This record gives sequence, C-alpha cells and structure tokens, in this order.
Amino acid sequence: MLGLVYDGKLAVRRNLPQPDPPKGEALIQVALAGICSTDLEITKGYMGFTGVLGHEFVGTVVRGSRRWEGRRVVGEINCVCERCDMCRSGMSNHCRHRTVLGIAGRDGCFAEMIALPERNLHEVPETVGDEEAVFVEPLAAAFQVVKQVRIEPRMRVAVLGSGRLGLLVAQVLARTGCRLHVVGRNEKTLSFCDKKGIQTVLVDDLVPKKDYDVAVECTGAPAGFELASQLVRPRGQIVLKSTYAAESRINLTPLVVDEIELLGSRCGPFPDALSALARKEIDVLSMISRALPLSRAIEAMEIAADPQNLKVLLKIPG
Amino acid sequence: MLGLVYDGKLAVRRNLPQPDPPKGEALIQVALAGICSTDLEITKGYMGFTGVLGHEFVGTVVRGSRRWEGRRVVGEINCVCERCDMCRSGMSNHCRHRTVLGIAGRDGCFAEMIALPERNLHEVPETVGDEEAVFVEPLAAAFQVVKQVRIEPRMRVAVLGSGRLGLLVAQVLARTGCRLHVVGRNEKTLSFCDKKGIQTVLVDDLVPKKDYDVAVECTGAPAGFELASQLVRPRGQIVLKSTYAAESRINLTPLVVDEIELLGSRCGPFPDALSALARKEIDVLSMISRALPLSRAIEAMEIAADPQNLKVLLKIPG
Repeated sequence: MLGLVYDGKLAVRRNLPQPDPPKGEALIQVALAGICSTDLEITKGYMGFTGVLGHEFVGTVVRGSRRWEGRRVVGEINCVCERCDMCRSGMSNHCRHRTVLGIAGRDGCFAEMIALPERNLHEVPETVGDEEAVFVEPLAAAFQVVKQVRIEPRMRVAVLGSGRLGLLVAQVLARTGCRLHVVGRNEKTLSFCDKKGIQTVLVDDLVPKKDYDVAVECTGAPAGFELASQLVRPRGQIVLKSTYAAESRINLTPLVVDEIELLGSRCGPFPDALSALARKEIDVLSMISRALPLSRAIEAMEIAADPQNLKVLLKIPG
Repeated sequence: MLGLVYDGKLAVRRNLPQPDPPKGEALIQVALAGICSTDLEITKGYMGFTGVLGHEFVGTVVRGSRRWEGRRVVGEINCVCERCDMCRSGMSNHCRHRTVLGIAGRDGCFAEMIALPERNLHEVPETVGDEEAVFVEPLAAAFQVVKQVRIEPRMRVAVLGSGRLGLLVAQVLARTGCRLHVVGRNEKTLSFCDKKGIQTVLVDDLVPKKDYDVAVECTGAPAGFELASQLVRPRGQIVLKSTYAAESRINLTPLVVDEIELLGSRCGPFPDALSALARKEIDVLSMISRALPLSRAIEAMEIAADPQNLKVLLKIPG
C-alpha cells in the first residue's frame, strides 16, 4: 500500500505491507488525514520516531468486530495496555507501555490502511463530514485545556499562536465567554479570529503587563513560553500545548517568584470534539488551506510547514 | 550602624544610617539573622538588588505603636501597597508595588536595625527561642508547599536537595505521613534526615522511574528541575522552590507529554511555622552549622556557600 514514511528522511512508499491487526484491533481504510505540527517536529528528530507518519484521520473500518465493521470512524491515538498503574488509575492516555499512532511504536495514518484498537474508535455522526471529522483529534486536544483549567467568564485569557492548534484552542475558549485575546505574528492567520469576533493582538504590539489569568502556549516555539510567563499575573496559569524537538535557554525563577502554575496538556476528549462539530459550534472547514493526494505527501508537508498555511489534508487513496 | 551591604561587591559597613520608619512601620533591633541561599544568589546578580542583605531575622521592636513596642518579633518580608489588584484579591505577597526585605527595594536584616510595616510582624511566643525563631521565614516557605499541594499519606513524594530549604521542606512533609524520600548528593546533610527517620537516597544511586506523585525541587540548581521531571509520574506535580540567577537549557516538552503540573512556590504562612516551632515539631536547632558576629558577615557568607554547611547565623550586634 501507499504511505508516507519517515526513517531519517521522508519518502512516499508504494509497497508498504498492509497492517494485520491482532485481536481487539480494527483494520481501517483511511479517507482523509491531517498534517499536524507534531508530524513536522518528528522530521526534526522529535520522539525519535521512524515509520509511517500521521495521527489525525477519518476512515472506515474494513475489518473488525461486528460492532465496528463498515462504520465511519475517528480514533484516539494512544494504544494502551489496560494493566499498568496509569491505566488502572484512569489515566490510560499516559499508559506506561503505550504505542501512539504515527508518533511512537505504531505506524500512522498517512497511508491507505491503519490498525487501531477498537476501544480507541469513535463513530462519526452522519452530520459531520470527513473534512470536519479529520479535525477531531486536534480539536480534542484543544478541549483538554478546558478540562484542566476552569475558565470563567470574567477571566482574561491569552492564546499564544494563531496556527492550527492555536485557532482550535481559541474557538474552544471563546465558548466560555472569557475575555480572550489571540496573540500572533501572522496577520493572515489572525484574520481568521477577527472573522469570528475573537480579539487579536499582533505580538509586536503587545506590552506584557502580567495581567492575564491564563495563557495557553500554542506557538510551537520555545519563545512562546517566555512570553507566556510575562503575560500571566502572579498565581496565574500557563497551559503548555506545544511539543518540539528543541531545547532552549530558560530561567524558571520567574515561575517561583510569581508562583505561576504551569500545566502540560496533550490529548483530549474525543466525545467533546465530536459533539461540538456535530452542533457546528467550531469552524474547522475555514481552516483547511489545501488538500492534496497522499502521493504528494512530501509537498503537502512542505506546505504545512509554511506558517501562512493552516491545516493541510491528505486525500487517501492518493 | 553596622551592616552587610552588597553593591556589586560585599562589604561590612560601620557607618550605615539607621532606618527612620514612616508611619505604620516599626523600628526593630535585630538579634539574630539567618543566611539563605537567596542571599548568596543576590551576590551573583539575582534580582539586581543592592543594599543591606538579609531577610531572615528575629528581633525586638524598639520604636513603634503601643501594640508592638518592646515585643520580640519575626517579620514577613513582602511590604505591600494594600491597593493594587493583587493586594485586593488576597494575594498581597504578590503586590505589584511591593518592596521585599533585603531582596527588592528595601534594606535587609544583616544590620543592627531594620524598618518593617507593623502589619508584617508576628510576636514570638516565649517558648520559642531566638535560634528557633530566626527560622520562621524559611520554615514558612516550606509550609507553602503543603498549602499549594494536597499531600496524602499514600502519596510518594521526593524532596530534591538536602540543603537548608530541603531539610525544612522534608520535615514539613514528613508530618503528612506521605511516603517521603529526600534525594541529595551530600552524605553529611542527608544524615540529618536519617536521624529523623526520613528515608534518603543518594542522587547517584537513584534510578528515575517516573513513579513519584510529587517532587519538590530545593536544590538551588537548574539540574534539579530536569531530575524532578524524570521522577514524577505522568500527571504528577513538581513544586519549584529554588530561585537562582542562572538560565539553563531546558526542554519543556516532557511536561506536555506527561501533562505534568509545575508549581512555583515562594513565601509561606508565618503562623503555621511559628506554631510548629512552639510545639517543637520541627527541629531547626540541629540545622545550625555556625553562628558568627555580624562584623564577620563576609566570612559567614563564605561558610554558608559551602554545601557541607546548613544554616549560618549572624549574631547582632556584632
């Protein structure tokens, strides 16, 4: 089968073996996949992953149990053991022995077929199209912010970064009625917020006054953390969403002096994302910059790396 | 008056002007002062402070209101405006316009006399001697950890660092009945814990397994943070107590992947510290390595900088 492989370099391969799912896993024909900044970071060495890239998809179960065969699905990306201490304490996304679709120990969805445990699957309602459903995984990650931090209407909240993830987080936070500003350096992507009535600030116009209650770091760059720590008030909260391969020079002392709470935030609740899409409360369609066939996946990755672009999709088969 | 001044270099001065407290502030004759790692960091450029050093003291009010004159006191170090947003929301330790005794905009207690707002003062009970009372400020900072994080008996907790602050934090945490380990590199200071029945681990013997619920970073060095993030489980908590002048190379991505919560922690509740000392629940006397007259303050700072030593006190007048 066709797929995009990273093994130190990127290559579209035509002769990949089709996955042969073990018991409990379904074989899924991928219809549409989305390129995430994490995919780009992996090609810089993040996670040391090699294999088929990709973890955002919508597809159809072609082989599995009767419950799932023929269903249109999206899938959670953490494949877990159900036995370790983390699984047993209800934190299976942090399973000690997990594999993660296209990120750690398991081939991803930039391919015609994938295998995924059936417990990871969520059926997509008819009212949610493929081009919306392919956003469920990153949108769930955006919903994780409001699972971790209680956002109230009077609170001042800054989202740092107006890229793919930042705009999803911004839309989720806008629903809370908080006093929201999206901080970015890209007028084109910030204009997405303007159209939604979400206030924006160009980073060069920003004068940090330590007066935000919460800052959500979605820039994908280490500098975002430093700005966040200048924006939040003492005892405020910084939510870190970005993952990247690089280290940077950081002084943690301001966190101590201002007693700031820093929260790492990763995968989130699929049901919340699916139901928000079904109710048309989040606009993901306007975030699609391009859709290319899987055979042009390398070109698609390059387009996705341009900060002028938002979501780039891969149409499969390509 | 006599005092230890830092203005780019350290000097004991004999002709310092005595403070002239404004209304609402008391004039306090210092009896005993303690050297903290923050004092040592200030001499490396931390906070950009210049003036009389020192913020841990016990003394007697020699001029003030009738309520306070003649009282033996310790004092909170943050002098606040009572009007800014932080003060009005009950977070006056984070006052936007604060001065901090011997740390920011206010001369400290390595001197014969200091001025401090009367609202900052706490009377020392007769049962608490000067050599115990001088520990109230750092012990309060140790109590701040249990104000910020709920520690339960079944929890695995690591304290990183067996220095002055680490041993106070360890003693406070030991009272919770949690499964506590103090991690250090100094056998001499770790032996303090052994005598108290607190389990210790030499850092070179430690194999990080991400199995602590909470790690409290008290090493005073950036490397402590990295170790902490290898010790705590996913969704665990790291409390940062150390402040230092230096930056270091850090990758925040592990915090995101493991959804770790990082909490900066600074000053704490004086009443908790005073009452624990009055009940003799915390042993501070065994932590006194040396006591020198104020006139030998520079030598005392050098002794305090040696990690073999714990608390070094200054006897005043010197």
